[in-house]
Amino acid sequence: MRLFACILAMAAAIGPAWAQDLPSWNEGPIKDAIIDFVTAATTEGGPGWVEPEDRIATFDNDGTLWTEHPVYFQFMFVSDRIRHLAPRHPEWKLQPPFKGILEGDTKAVAASGEHGVTELMAVTHAWMTAEAFEEIVSDWISTARHPRFDRPYDSLIYQPMVELMDYLRDNGFQTWIVSGGGADFMRPWADDAYGIPPQQIIGSQIAEDYQIIEGKPQFMRKPQVFFVDDGPGKPVGIHRHIGKRPVMAFGNSDGDYQMLEYTTSGDGPSLAMIVHHTDGDREYAYDRDTHIGRLDKAMTDAPAKGWHLIDMARDWSTIYPEP
Amino acid sequence: MRLFACILAMAAAIGPAWAQDLPSWNEGPIKDAIIDFVTAATTEGGPGWVEPEDRIATFDNDGTLWTEHPVYFQFMFVSDRIRHLAPRHPEWKLQPPFKGILEGDTKAVAASGEHGVTELMAVTHAWMTAEAFEEIVSDWISTARHPRFDRPYDSLIYQPMVELMDYLRDNGFQTWIVSGGGADFMRPWADDAYGIPPQQIIGSQIAEDYQIIEGKPQFMRKPQVFFVDDGPGKPVGIHRHIGKRPVMAFGNSDGDYQMLEYTTSGDGPSLAMIVHHTDGDREYAYDRDTHIGRLDKAMTDAPAKGWHLIDMARDWSTIYPEP
Repeated sequence: MRLFACILAMAAAIGPAWAQDLPSWNEGPIKDAIIDFVTAATTEGGPGWVEPEDRIATFDNDGTLWTEHPVYFQFMFVSDRIRHLAPRHPEWKLQPPFKGILEGDTKAVAASGEHGVTELMAVTHAWMTAEAFEEIVSDWISTARHPRFDRPYDSLIYQPMVELMDYLRDNGFQTWIVSGGGADFMRPWADDAYGIPPQQIIGSQIAEDYQIIEGKPQFMRKPQVFFVDDGPGKPVGIHRHIGKRPVMAFGNSDGDYQMLEYTTSGDGPSLAMIVHHTDGDREYAYDRDTHIGRLDKAMTDAPAKGWHLIDMARDWSTIYPEP
Repeated sequence: MRLFACILAMAAAIGPAWAQDLPSWNEGPIKDAIIDFVTAATTEGGPGWVEPEDRIATFDNDGTLWTEHPVYFQFMFVSDRIRHLAPRHPEWKLQPPFKGILEGDTKAVAASGEHGVTELMAVTHAWMTAEAFEEIVSDWISTARHPRFDRPYDSLIYQPMVELMDYLRDNGFQTWIVSGGGADFMRPWADDAYGIPPQQIIGSQIAEDYQIIEGKPQFMRKPQVFFVDDGPGKPVGIHRHIGKRPVMAFGNSDGDYQMLEYTTSGDGPSLAMIVHHTDGDREYAYDRDTHIGRLDKAMTDAPAKGWHLIDMARDWSTIYPEP
């Protein structure tokens, strides 16, 4: 009996990865490509070996790790905050872009342009301490619900990607978020949702001042952009925070183009994948023709670049975790 | 014999930490404070317990992990680069601040002010790719030698601090550098010297552009300051990169004041220490009256703040690693 148990344990340890890992990924070329890459990366002496310290995998967030339609969830947060604060600001009823938000008129909000967005960000993201902002985000994420799915936003994460990140960490990879969204908007909930700690979250950031307020050190958030972690900003953010080239990158839109390009430009092994939103029934279907998460140039160039397209409808047996 | 070996191994495993750790630290209150803090932090259920994910320790670099006299080593790098480039720039012989560097006249360099420093930085740190800069730094660190000790700069690291960082990592702490020096100046050699990988190095940074040069993604370094990681910039850098408050911090000058203040302002356990340069024979002796690494306000406030002063002459049996 003891010998038998021992053999079973050994078999489990050396058995094929697909037997236990990535249960929400359907068998096919994409799952194979992931497992082949990781198996090679962890096979010492093989041609695909990646030194443990170089096992860096970066993930976009919106549309790659969680849903981004009908609009970026951070924009839903902004709308909810404006509505919450409106009773104290009666003037907003007449004043764009606040008027547009309060009337649910997204076109009017869009028409207010960069100046409008800056005003919205100032009111909802700045002139408060980092601690206060963290509390507001935590409250919101635990109470707000997605209009179509009627579920908390942090439950609209992609189960296959959660499994993928677990699988990568089990194989010695560091998993990093590299998102156009706000770093401080993701940090309060990303560890629970994805198992990614705050120090592995790279995102856009606004200016902050260190101040002593009532005897206590605080970070005062100011309505000025410090860094935009999108497009060419993504590799720059990676270089600033990580200081080395990732070997794996996952994105879903043209905003991830340069991150995928940078990741796959090294001499050693690399793997880049794009989540292609093909599933209008279970999630959303969009690529070239959308205002949120547009995937155009990256899809056109993917074959020549060797980037894989994850076909959500075909490759994922489950989209979201069980409620 | 086997039983004896087994008992020995067990004794080693449960024996007091000072028996095997921190051999270059002399017995005394500072070594005790470190070991007491770490023992409590790793004693589950005890009053000093620190959750593994909160075990963040931050270290200043210049004067805390390596020597900073007679001038910051990054300034030695700048001087050496200017001298190296001078044959291609005959006009520098007459033009401050280059003239001052070439004539070894540090007063003239200082007199050139902020504009002079910016010019020196532009010439030595910018208008090149990150890859090229990394190569230049690596070349320099492997060939340049300290004027007094006639040793490579990266061998003038403090052996006790290297042991301390090892000891902390063995106890589940993440060790981070938070330096006023350039992040990209430290990254090429800090992993070998300190066991700290590039993604755990926070430092000052200049502007960078992502560009495709000869078909290859590159980061072009530009002569504009992006972030100054000094003084109040240190907690801001920590907040941007780590996103949580450290529980341990080590510095040596007033430029570390706010990092120590932030670290010791939480509700839970924390420990802050200042390396006090008291050893003119083996290293340098200075505090309030120096232009490099001035320690004044932080020393005055240390007792009230509960910050410990490491007395280099008293607490360290060795300063540098064996050559």
